[in-house]
Amino acid sequence: MKQFFTKINVESQPGKLIELTRNVSELINNKDISNGLITLYIKHTSASLLIQENADPDVLYDLENFFNNIAPQDLSLYKHQTDDMPAHIKSALTSTHLSIPLKDKALMLGTWQGIFLFEHRNRSHTRTIEIHIIGE
Amino acid sequence: MKQFFTKINVESQPGKLIELTRNVSELINNKDISNGLITLYIKHTSASLLIQENADPDVLYDLENFFNNIAPQDLSLYKHQTDDMPAHIKSALTSTHLSIPLKDKALMLGTWQGIFLFEHRNRSHTRTIEIHIIGE
Amino acid sequence: MKQFFTKINVESQPGKLIELTRNVSELINNKDISNGLITLYIKHTSASLLIQENADPDVLYDLENFFNNIAPQDLSLYKHQTDDMPAHIKSALTSTHLSIPLKDKALMLGTWQGIFLFEHRNRSHTRTIEIHIIGE
Repeated sequence: MKQFFTKINVESQPGKLIELTRNVSELINNKDISNGLITLYIKHTSASLLIQENADPDVLYDLENFFNNIAPQDLSLYKHQTDDMPAHIKSALTSTHLSIPLKDKALMLGTWQGIFLFEHRNRSHTRTIEIHIIGE
Repeated sequence: MKQFFTKINVESQPGKLIELTRNVSELINNKDISNGLITLYIKHTSASLLIQENADPDVLYDLENFFNNIAPQDLSLYKHQTDDMPAHIKSALTSTHLSIPLKDKALMLGTWQGIFLFEHRNRSHTRTIEIHIIGE
Repeated sequence: MKQFFTKINVESQPGKLIELTRNVSELINNKDISNGLITLYIKHTSASLLIQENADPDVLYDLENFFNNIAPQDLSLYKHQTDDMPAHIKSALTSTHLSIPLKDKALMLGTWQGIFLFEHRNRSHTRTIEIHIIGE
């Protein structure tokens, strides 16, 4: 049994879901590990991680829209007076970490699943995702 | 240290939470492992996993009702024009994976906790949950 | 590769987010492990775990307020007639478990990230968080 640490830095886009499946798959190709568990951990509280549908861009649009409605960008609603409070709420409602089993060097994703970074702020940021892989 | 991969296929019920605690416990009984970490990973984006109260069926009713209200089955609200957009939203708000410590061959669940599959679509499906167990 | 099991018991405060980062860091200091993955698992369905901003208390206030609005403490809304139904909903929307990579004996948290217990009930409770650490 062995483990690896690595990371991905992603340039996000304001309020958007960005697919990272290929970035993660490529990392695994370069490691001497075939079967195990991979954990992605995002080091931010105004962006998050999500497994979602990888086929129709309208799904991403509707998801972004849903979260914009549930946590509106209207500062009068919040005590915290920086513009990132809705981003913190969206982050709390989604995921800071994802764990995915890995078999025969492939992520065990479903056919329609992709790994996404969800940027909750209104400008782009460099977001860091720490990655831990354990297995053999 | 060793690891095991297995899976559960579940026939879901439209819009319902279905308890899987016993299915998962039985899997562990059959493996040569006593202490470690078990990770459940659902390969779908219109069904999800949840740890919830295992005692009163009204809790499950209220949870299903809450999610139906927050993401209504009203296609005029969405750009994605298949009937699964509310299901994608409910999936984003709950969990694609669960990790639970395992000790002396028992899941370390609280007294009132059960493991549930949450079917978000309006018909039943065969849902696949991949399982990774690591420990000794 | 080795693993450890431990736990934290926390006295919560009604409806509040309570930071546990230091409690978790101290546990790691006392273990013979430097690099790996730590998983926190809360054994309750009316309290949960969250990674959130550790700087401005107003963020915690706004988060508590958001969840109180989305799942109001109004029993006429629910079939389950104990006062913990909103707590179950808030628990479903946040996290029962957190996994965080550990490197050089430090949690790989972002600068602004803290680990929080989120008590969803209107009175304080002793909450138990099981902890699993794997690595070397």
